[in-house]
Amino acid sequence: MTIAFEPIAWAAQGVRILDQTLLPGEERYLEIGTIDDMVEAIQSLRVRGAPLIGISAAMGLAAAASAAAKGATLDSDWLARAIDRLEASRPTAVNLKWALERMRAAGDAAFTGERQGRAVAAALRAEAQRVWDIEAGMCRYLGEFGAQLLTPGFTVLTHCNTGRLATGGLGTALAAIYVASQEQDMGIDVVVTETRPLRQGARLTAWELVRAGIPVRVIADSAAGSFMAAAEIDVVITGADRIARNGDVANKIGTYNLAVLARAHGIPFYVSAPRSTIDSTMASGDEIPIEFRGAGELEAAPGAAVVNPAFDVTPAELVTAIVTDGGIVEPPFEQHLAGVLEQVTPDEGRRG
Amino acid sequence: MTIAFEPIAWAAQGVRILDQTLLPGEERYLEIGTIDDMVEAIQSLRVRGAPLIGISAAMGLAAAASAAAKGATLDSDWLARAIDRLEASRPTAVNLKWALERMRAAGDAAFTGERQGRAVAAALRAEAQRVWDIEAGMCRYLGEFGAQLLTPGFTVLTHCNTGRLATGGLGTALAAIYVASQEQDMGIDVVVTETRPLRQGARLTAWELVRAGIPVRVIADSAAGSFMAAAEIDVVITGADRIARNGDVANKIGTYNLAVLARAHGIPFYVSAPRSTIDSTMASGDEIPIEFRGAGELEAAPGAAVVNPAFDVTPAELVTAIVTDGGIVEPPFEQHLAGVLEQVTPDEGRRG
Repeated sequence: MTIAFEPIAWAAQGVRILDQTLLPGEERYLEIGTIDDMVEAIQSLRVRGAPLIGISAAMGLAAAASAAAKGATLDSDWLARAIDRLEASRPTAVNLKWALERMRAAGDAAFTGERQGRAVAAALRAEAQRVWDIEAGMCRYLGEFGAQLLTPGFTVLTHCNTGRLATGGLGTALAAIYVASQEQDMGIDVVVTETRPLRQGARLTAWELVRAGIPVRVIADSAAGSFMAAAEIDVVITGADRIARNGDVANKIGTYNLAVLARAHGIPFYVSAPRSTIDSTMASGDEIPIEFRGAGELEAAPGAAVVNPAFDVTPAELVTAIVTDGGIVEPPFEQHLAGVLEQVTPDEGRRG
Repeated sequence: MTIAFEPIAWAAQGVRILDQTLLPGEERYLEIGTIDDMVEAIQSLRVRGAPLIGISAAMGLAAAASAAAKGATLDSDWLARAIDRLEASRPTAVNLKWALERMRAAGDAAFTGERQGRAVAAALRAEAQRVWDIEAGMCRYLGEFGAQLLTPGFTVLTHCNTGRLATGGLGTALAAIYVASQEQDMGIDVVVTETRPLRQGARLTAWELVRAGIPVRVIADSAAGSFMAAAEIDVVITGADRIARNGDVANKIGTYNLAVLARAHGIPFYVSAPRSTIDSTMASGDEIPIEFRGAGELEAAPGAAVVNPAFDVTPAELVTAIVTDGGIVEPPFEQHLAGVLEQVTPDEGRRG
């Protein structure tokens, strides 16, 4: 059983997105044709997941440029303003910045070539499609490499949402599960944590795995230890928001809990992320800034302080291996991560 | 700043309870005068926490017996039926059974002594007060002993709700914090986990500590590890639902996660519970039955399985010490728990 859904698609009048704020209760698609509407969709988390945000911004820009070309208002100034507004919608998302820099370069090249109007819009649409293709290809590689770490019949514990809903392809950590389950018939079972406070595991990962016909059980974050103690979990795989040079991993709050618990139970702990997640400017996780979010997400009693870090840092020594689109990276991470960054990527612009 | 609240009290026409289902949003008290209403209050979790359930049932029985005496309907049959109905309201709560057995014995003694009507009702009320006094005394002892494990300026991590709202006194694990903070001026800070799925930490523990003027920070369950890694936590104290002969501890789901994390960070992990929680019939935690609750508490995507254990078992080797009303018990637990059970208690009826 696989019931298709598309988190993003080209549409007649622009771009069609799945409104993720309504999941899992309602599967509603929105058609977006303006910069305003795409900024709103990104800021409201209607599209979310770092790779998908970058793709959405690029495609939304191309669609709005098309409309501007028809109205004869597409010029360099229009493009610069549109890119600035999209880039400001989630300033910390690394993929958003990357995608928009590609779009800026493509637009500049088209204008420099003295192309105008619809020809520039066509160049932007082609570039947005390339952004999507690159991200989908990255997911494919993560899935192929990640599946090599799985064995038929394994139960995989994962955290948050790192799948189709977060990317333009199979996902990052979930890509391994899709490839192993749907293409290699490994009969993988998934256990996903609820992932408080925003519940991406219970709402989004469970939703997309049900749609894919992959067996999934949702547990409270606090039940992970007892599941491991009961020998219910063979391997843990999570995504990453940023990886330092030494292999320390910043990811959704709760990842570190799972890494400590996995080590205590002798369970491999894998991280899956594209090479673009490796931040060579940071020597260790100590340098990675941690975003603290609003108290409202935890709904505590009035008067109580709430401390709500969105991310935590898992030290490299708790990580068994890091799955990248350049291959599986094992310790010592400092040396091996540098090696994987030396490889040619389909996107040289992501380097440095 | 201390703003008084009473989870239970005698009232003109019966018993007054604080409706805990409305916390932290609303502090509403209900007056209960009939067996029906007390059964409903217990089943709906308006009163909760094993010690408080026992006290509420005993006091509710005494209040209803008073009314029955006025109407000349209080006899042995009335009493037996009332006790059976209260006992069935939460069949697994050990304190409920204990409290009602004391009430049955007190009623039987009064009837045997050929007392009638109001004299029997008075005997039942006196016994209900003793139940309350014993439970409050147990809290006092847990608090005095538990405070010996704290040092001025400590930050204590706790889980779920084990305080005034769960008992007829200072609480079990929270009693140490109340004694250390309010009576010994130790300047204790508290960090409490949200405690998914029912959020007793964020809703109830935060509420009662704010009322007591004790500094409290609420964190997601999944943030416990990163707080420990940041050296924010000096000690962990939790309650217990059942303790096996060997010192294995069954408690609210998530307790085991915290015990593993505490060990990994070199932080003491203490359990606080009255001797009545020690179940000498169980050799180890393997024998303790774990209740699984409904899927609705985790609100997962439709079609996803939900596994929602209400409790987990922490093996004795992760427990630094167990605070009991008979003193602080250190390893080897098998021997020392047996020793503490040999001591005289104010309630011989709770033995074996």
